[in-house]
This record gives sequence, C-alpha cells and structure tokens, in this order.
Amino acid sequence: MYVDLNCDMGESFGHYQLGNDEEMMALISSANIACGFHAGDPHVMRKTVQLARQHGVSIGAHPGFPDMMGFGRRYMNCSAEEIRDYILYQTGALREFARAYQLDLDHCKPHGALYMMAMADEKIARAFLEGLAMLDEKMIVFALNGSAVAWLGEKMGIPIALEVYADREHTEDGSIVLTRSGPTISDPQTMAKRVVRMVKEGKVTTPDGKEATVRADTICIHGDTPGAVELTKAIHHAFREAGIEIRSVKKS
Amino acid sequence: MYVDLNCDMGESFGHYQLGNDEEMMALISSANIACGFHAGDPHVMRKTVQLARQHGVSIGAHPGFPDMMGFGRRYMNCSAEEIRDYILYQTGALREFARAYQLDLDHCKPHGALYMMAMADEKIARAFLEGLAMLDEKMIVFALNGSAVAWLGEKMGIPIALEVYADREHTEDGSIVLTRSGPTISDPQTMAKRVVRMVKEGKVTTPDGKEATVRADTICIHGDTPGAVELTKAIHHAFREAGIEIRSVKKS
Amino acid sequence: MYVDLNCDMGESFGHYQLGNDEEMMALISSANIACGFHAGDPHVMRKTVQLARQHGVSIGAHPGFPDMMGFGRRYMNCSAEEIRDYILYQTGALREFARAYQLDLDHCKPHGALYMMAMADEKIARAFLEGLAMLDEKMIVFALNGSAVAWLGEKMGIPIALEVYADREHTEDGSIVLTRSGPTISDPQTMAKRVVRMVKEGKVTTPDGKEATVRADTICIHGDTPGAVELTKAIHHAFREAGIEIRSVKKS
Amino acid sequence: MYVDLNCDMGESFGHYQLGNDEEMMALISSANIACGFHAGDPHVMRKTVQLARQHGVSIGAHPGFPDMMGFGRRYMNCSAEEIRDYILYQTGALREFARAYQLDLDHCKPHGALYMMAMADEKIARAFLEGLAMLDEKMIVFALNGSAVAWLGEKMGIPIALEVYADREHTEDGSIVLTRSGPTISDPQTMAKRVVRMVKEGKVTTPDGKEATVRADTICIHGDTPGAVELTKAIHHAFREAGIEIRSVKKS
Repeated sequence: MYVDLNCDMGESFGHYQLGNDEEMMALISSANIACGFHAGDPHVMRKTVQLARQHGVSIGAHPGFPDMMGFGRRYMNCSAEEIRDYILYQTGALREFARAYQLDLDHCKPHGALYMMAMADEKIARAFLEGLAMLDEKMIVFALNGSAVAWLGEKMGIPIALEVYADREHTEDGSIVLTRSGPTISDPQTMAKRVVRMVKEGKVTTPDGKEATVRADTICIHGDTPGAVELTKAIHHAFREAGIEIRSVKKS
Repeated sequence: MYVDLNCDMGESFGHYQLGNDEEMMALISSANIACGFHAGDPHVMRKTVQLARQHGVSIGAHPGFPDMMGFGRRYMNCSAEEIRDYILYQTGALREFARAYQLDLDHCKPHGALYMMAMADEKIARAFLEGLAMLDEKMIVFALNGSAVAWLGEKMGIPIALEVYADREHTEDGSIVLTRSGPTISDPQTMAKRVVRMVKEGKVTTPDGKEATVRADTICIHGDTPGAVELTKAIHHAFREAGIEIRSVKKS
Repeated sequence: MYVDLNCDMGESFGHYQLGNDEEMMALISSANIACGFHAGDPHVMRKTVQLARQHGVSIGAHPGFPDMMGFGRRYMNCSAEEIRDYILYQTGALREFARAYQLDLDHCKPHGALYMMAMADEKIARAFLEGLAMLDEKMIVFALNGSAVAWLGEKMGIPIALEVYADREHTEDGSIVLTRSGPTISDPQTMAKRVVRMVKEGKVTTPDGKEATVRADTICIHGDTPGAVELTKAIHHAFREAGIEIRSVKKS
Repeated sequence: MYVDLNCDMGESFGHYQLGNDEEMMALISSANIACGFHAGDPHVMRKTVQLARQHGVSIGAHPGFPDMMGFGRRYMNCSAEEIRDYILYQTGALREFARAYQLDLDHCKPHGALYMMAMADEKIARAFLEGLAMLDEKMIVFALNGSAVAWLGEKMGIPIALEVYADREHTEDGSIVLTRSGPTISDPQTMAKRVVRMVKEGKVTTPDGKEATVRADTICIHGDTPGAVELTKAIHHAFREAGIEIRSVKKS
C-alpha cells in the first residue's frame, strides 16, 4: 500500500521568501512548483528544480492566475482559451528548467482559484485537458474527487491522480473548500489519523458528520501553514505504523 | 546563394495591438516570437506560433527583460544568472506552444536591451550560452558580427547565425547601434541595395564612410517600423534580381 | 439644457498606443483617465493631463482591476477592502499629476469589470463610496441609472452623475451590458438620435422594444471603437440642432 | 540636540511579508513607505499609514523602479522624465492614503537603485526635484551628503535632510555604497557609537581609516536586516546617554 505526498513549492518571489522548501522537500514525493504567475520567478524555479532533483522528488507544474498581488487566490473570469494558454505557458517555462537538469515534469496541478475553477467548470476542464494532451499524453493531472477534471480526464484517457487534503475539510462528494483564510484542521495527530483512513479505507468524515468516499492517490500538504514540517512528520510516522509507503505518482 | 530574413513577431499584448504580423509573416523565413516579458502574452504566443506554422516560417524565442512598460529597451543590471534564467523561462514557455503544434524552436534571439547587453558583456554571453547549451545544443543563436555572443558561441561549438540589420547603420566592427528612437535608414531602395551588398559582398558602408566587413547569415527586419511591408517587398524584389534565395536558418 | 460627454482617455501603455486621444479630447467635456492598473502608465498619465488642460476638459480618475493582460475587463473576486484601496491608490496617483498642473480631479469612474462590480454589488459600492468620501466629499461619482453606487451615493450625500452610453444597449432599469466584444450600436445617426432623446426626454428603447427611463447627466463615448471621432461629431451636430449644450460635470 | 530616525516600511506585498513593521514603527520618527513599484501594494500602504499614525511617526514616500522581481535594486536606464513621472505617480498614490487619515507626506526618499541614480546623476536629480517642487515646495527630500540631489536641492531652495546610514560604511565624501548583499556593519554597540559620533561630531571613519565629514539630519535604519529591532534599541539607549533626542524632520 502506497500513496503520494504533494506540496506546493517554489512560491518565493524575488526578495520575498515563502514557505520552508528546504525542509519540506525532504518529506514529500511530489513537488508542485509555482511558475511565475501567482508566485515564483525564474531564479526561484531553477533553485526549486535543483532542490527537488537532489531529494529525488517528482516535479510538476503548479500554474496559477496572473495575479501576484492576490497570490492566485482570486477568481478571474478568464475564458477557457485564456486559461488553457496560461497553463501551457507556465508549464513550458517550468519544463525548460527541468530539462536543464535532465528531468521531465510528471504532473500538473493548477493553483488556488484556477484549480477550483478547473475542478468546477466543465468548459475550463476540457480546454485545460485538451491543451495538456497536445503536449504530453502521459502527464498526470492532480484532481479532486468528483471534479470536472477528474471525470472528464478519465473519459479522455488522461492519467488522473485523485487528491485529498491533509488540512482541509472534505464535502460529501469528496471535494474540499479552499478558503483564503487557511487550514481548518490543525492538530497533527488528528490530521495524520484522518489521512491514514483516507488512504486505507477511502473514507473521510465531513464537518456535519457524514461519511464521504474518496480515492487518495496523492495527499496535498500546505507548506506555508504554521507547523507544516511537524504535521508532515506526523503523517510519516502514522504511515510507517500503518504500513503505507510514500511513493511519487510517476509518468508511466 | 541564400540568406534568412528574421523579424520580431507576437509583440501584441492583451488588448494592445502592435505590428503587422499577418502580412509580415508571409514575407520572412524566421520569426522571433516575444515571450511575455517585454511584450506578448500566452494567447498572442499561441496565435503567432499558429501563424508561423501556416506560412512554414521557422520560429525562435525572443526573450527580453521583465519590463513591459519600457518594452524591454531599458538596460537593467541583472546578474548573469538572472539573465540566463529569464531566457530559459521565456524560451521554455514558447517551446511549449511550439510543441502543441508539433514544432520545435530553431533559434533564440534576445530582445532590445537584453540583446545589446548579451552582445557586449562576456559574462552575460557566457551565462546565456551555457544555459541554452544545457537545453539544446543545436539551437541556433542570432548574434551581431564581432559580438561576445558570436565569438564565445563559436568557441563553445554552439551554432551561431550572424545577423545584419536592414534599417540600422552598422559600425566598423559590424555591430549596430540600437536606439529607442527607431530606424535610421528608411528609403526602401537604398535599404534593399545595402542588404544585397551585405549578402553578396559581405560589405557595408558606415555612417562616416568607412567599409565594414560583415557576414550576413540572417537579416533583421523591424516589423513595427512604418512601411515595413513595403521595405520587405523591396528586399524580396532586389533578392530576386540578384539571385538570392530567402531560406530559414534551420537546426541541423 | 446641457449634458456632459465623457470618454476614457490615457489608455496607451509604454510602447503601446490605444485610442485617438488627440482628436477625442477636443470633442468631450470630461476625460476619465486610466491610472496604470488596467491601462496607462505614469508618462501617459502626465501627457493626458496636459492634453486635457490644454482643451479645458475636466479630468477624473478611471481606476481598474490590476489586470493589464485582460485590460481590466475580467471580474476578479477581490474583497471590498481591496477594491477600495485599489481605487484610492489609482485616484491618488492621478491626482498628483493633476496637482502638478494646478488642476483637481472632478470625478471618478471605475473601469470595465470593476465598474460593473461596483454598480451591482452593494458591499463594494459602499466600500468605494466611503473611501472616496474620506478624501473628497465633493468628488462626483459616475454611475449607472439604478445601480448600487447611484442609490447608495445619493443616500450618503455623495454627488452622483448618472450616465448613459452612446454605443451600448440599455436595459429596462436603465443599466447596460458591458461586453468584451465591443459596441452594439454603430450607426452614427441612430446613435446621435438616441442620445438626444435620452437627454431631452429621459427615455431609451431597450433591445426588446420596451421604454426605459433614464437620467442622463453624462454620456459615455468609447474612444477606442472604430469611428469614435465621427460618432462624436454626429452627436455634436445633433446637440446643436436640439439646443443641447455640452458642459462638464464640475465639482461645486 | 536631536536627529531623525528613518526606516523603510510597508515593503510587504500581497501574501508576502517583509520586515517587522509593527515593532520598528514604535522606534522611529520617519517612515519611508513603499508605493507599489518595487514593494508594497494598496492594502499594505493603507495599513502602514494607519500604523504610522497610531505611533505619531512622520510619513514619506519611498518610490522605486517598476521592478518588483528585483526589489528595485537593479539600475534601469530610464529617462529623467520617466523617473520623474514614476516618482510623482507613487508619491501621489501614497498621499491619497495619507489624506484618508488626515495626514500629509512630510518627505520623499527614493528606493534602492533609483535612490543611488538620483544621488549620482544631476539630470535625474533635477527632473526629480523639479517634479516634486511642482507639487509641494515644502516636502523634505532625503539625500546623501555630497550628492547631486543635496547640492541641487539646496541651490533650488528645496528643503533637504541629509542622511547617514547606521549599518553601512561611508566614503570620504559622506556617501555610501548600497550593495545587494546587505549591511556591512552588524554589531549593535559599534553601530550605536558610530551613529552618536556622526550626530554629535559630524564625523565618521571610512573603511580605509580616513575621517569623513557628514551632516546627519536623519539616520537610516534597515528594517529587514536581522536584529534591526535590537540595533535600533541600542541606538535609542546610546542617544539617551548622549543627550540626543529622536525627532522627526517635519515640514515647516
């Protein structure tokens, strides 16, 4: 039994530092690397690719809306074509840094409001998936359980890794609510137990006490929440006890 | 006898239109496509790649400084590493759009102040060339006669296409002066004759009446100067009379 | 009988030219000057203020979303506080150029998606109006008939100029539909007659043949639509025949 | 005997936090507030103005180059007119937030590369000073001893506050070298003694052991250097012992 641990990485920008990439990179199997629209810059991207390589961590693109001031967390009603092109642009920029270190991108996971929009809106999901498929049929797309990206991707034959969140509540259909105010679950032990249950049993309890069924191919950790390192270590510990191996979702 | 005609393309941005890409694309053999830092955006890049493909024109990256307000024409004292990373980022973003249409980038030509800086400064030339060589040893770099990029690139075994300018004066060492105020030569017939002589004889007269020796692998046309289409047609006409074929500089 | 003619101005940016400010400035009474977020830059702002001064045209701030790539036409779900602060920032920047030429801002009219959002959403209308009132109780706010800004502003004692559009259809409540695809009315004579009727009778026919009641304190002309100059001249002509004077909405 | 303590403030941006404004604001007399070009954003500007007001600290504009990625520390060869307009734009934006809290700007101090460029280049110094004088003849300009801004400003009758740096070495003419690598003096006691001597005796020892004469109207503290709070407290302590009062440089 195994599962992937993914974390957003490379979200520093110029003089601004964000997150704890050095420590987190040692604890995860997939890095979602920001691509310069909502966060990150070319120099940060290079350093993050180097860091991932050093730790043997799989890398993926983490494209966002062109909204540095809002950290990509504000919805923008871009057209499906604009969104597709923003994703290709950012994915390509990151792929070039990967190539410089003899790596390829294994996955793509949009960021923040772009993620939620692609998950919820079939037109955007389709544009995004058709765009990616033109480039690389094997690139794995991270998607929420029950999302437009998930069902459409599976229908189109695109490899989908379904993801759950360590520090967010899930709804009955397996989705989550991304808020600008941060995590809703903060105790490491509670979180670790929840995550183990999602991986082993495919179940999670919703805030109103119902049971949701989820498939957990990959677990998202937020690197910029306070205590992210401790939380991730708690998950590692709980996984060892439960016999769950952490293994990246690699392209076949 | 043949030569390449290159032109900056895809310099529109959002709601802003620039240049006459539709008409110019039919007249050139290599398109230098802006990559979103000094001009261009993801949507413009896609459309420009499509247009180049439709006309069988070779495409190359045209990266610039992150200075949209100054159209990449203002020197910025970025470090060699920053410049290298800016070039890789932009080249990668464009390459992804090329890939989506089963094309590859044949060349790279930096824009404006970044071009002049790379041509003049050995440290920057080296960082830029080493960066590109990590990605694609066969990508052709456009460089001025006598520039740091030209001699260093040849020393490093990187394919260099030496370029001359249709509408700019050349200095005795074959270089040019890029000004923010635009072209210095504007009569199409004069320009066409000058260009033919550069291609056939490898000679051009400097403003103070001296003879400069140049190698003209590719000729740069500015698409945003008034009368660019007429000028290029005059060059086509003069080339036909002189038996010079227009042929792109393609990767071997 | 008199009315104000307003037009968006100063929407060029760096190397990019937009609109026909030189000609339009001679034909209007109020210039809404872009402030560098969706369009415009400091240099363009100075030149536009100078041009307005030369023609005796009243100037106002035309703030937009921080989205140059989308020309401020895409909704962004910013918070009411963010929007208020964006408006103050941009208004202040423009006011400083006005001050340098011994002018003051007479009005404020948000741009594009920000305009539509402020008109429709009471929370945003309130934040915006409270922000402006902290600065200048006499600054006139341009607002759609029936909008949240209009009724809330009147309730708060803020001077409101109700506006109608020369080249857009109006709905039954006097509002309009801003589309990214441009104007829906394009014949100058039809437009001029419609505008005269809105000013004289306070009536306009909706697309489905109904009569809407409007108050036309100011009429918006789009300077970047093809034929804007001819259209505005047609309005001038029709106004002369109808005895309507063009006069700016100035602060008392 | 008294002197002003100034510190750059409001350099956070969107999701990115920088510096320790809460603690530093309690220790200084003048806040140089970033204006959204090299750092800061409208929301940060408002909060910083509020914080300064609460502590009775004088506020001034801290405009920079439009280079968020380089934190305004990279030279850009903008024209004198561009620089003047960038400074007016940013100053105006900040002044609007000040106005919203019934405050005015007391001073203006350019940031990073823009500061060094204005200090060194007479043409830029002139454009900057003429621009400011159009707005507010009483606004105090912070300038290095011996700089173009200092002597030209005094010649033009513009109030100049000469500044020295707590954590940087000075040259024989009283200037400093701004480096991208940070402070060169880091021991609080050494720094405090040096500062006291500059204020009381107008003398400072250069790195090569010479004595430089300086006038210290205001002392610059860097809020983002490690230990900035401790350093500033050491200066407070040394000032109390030396009978030096901390008092802002206010407009007359």
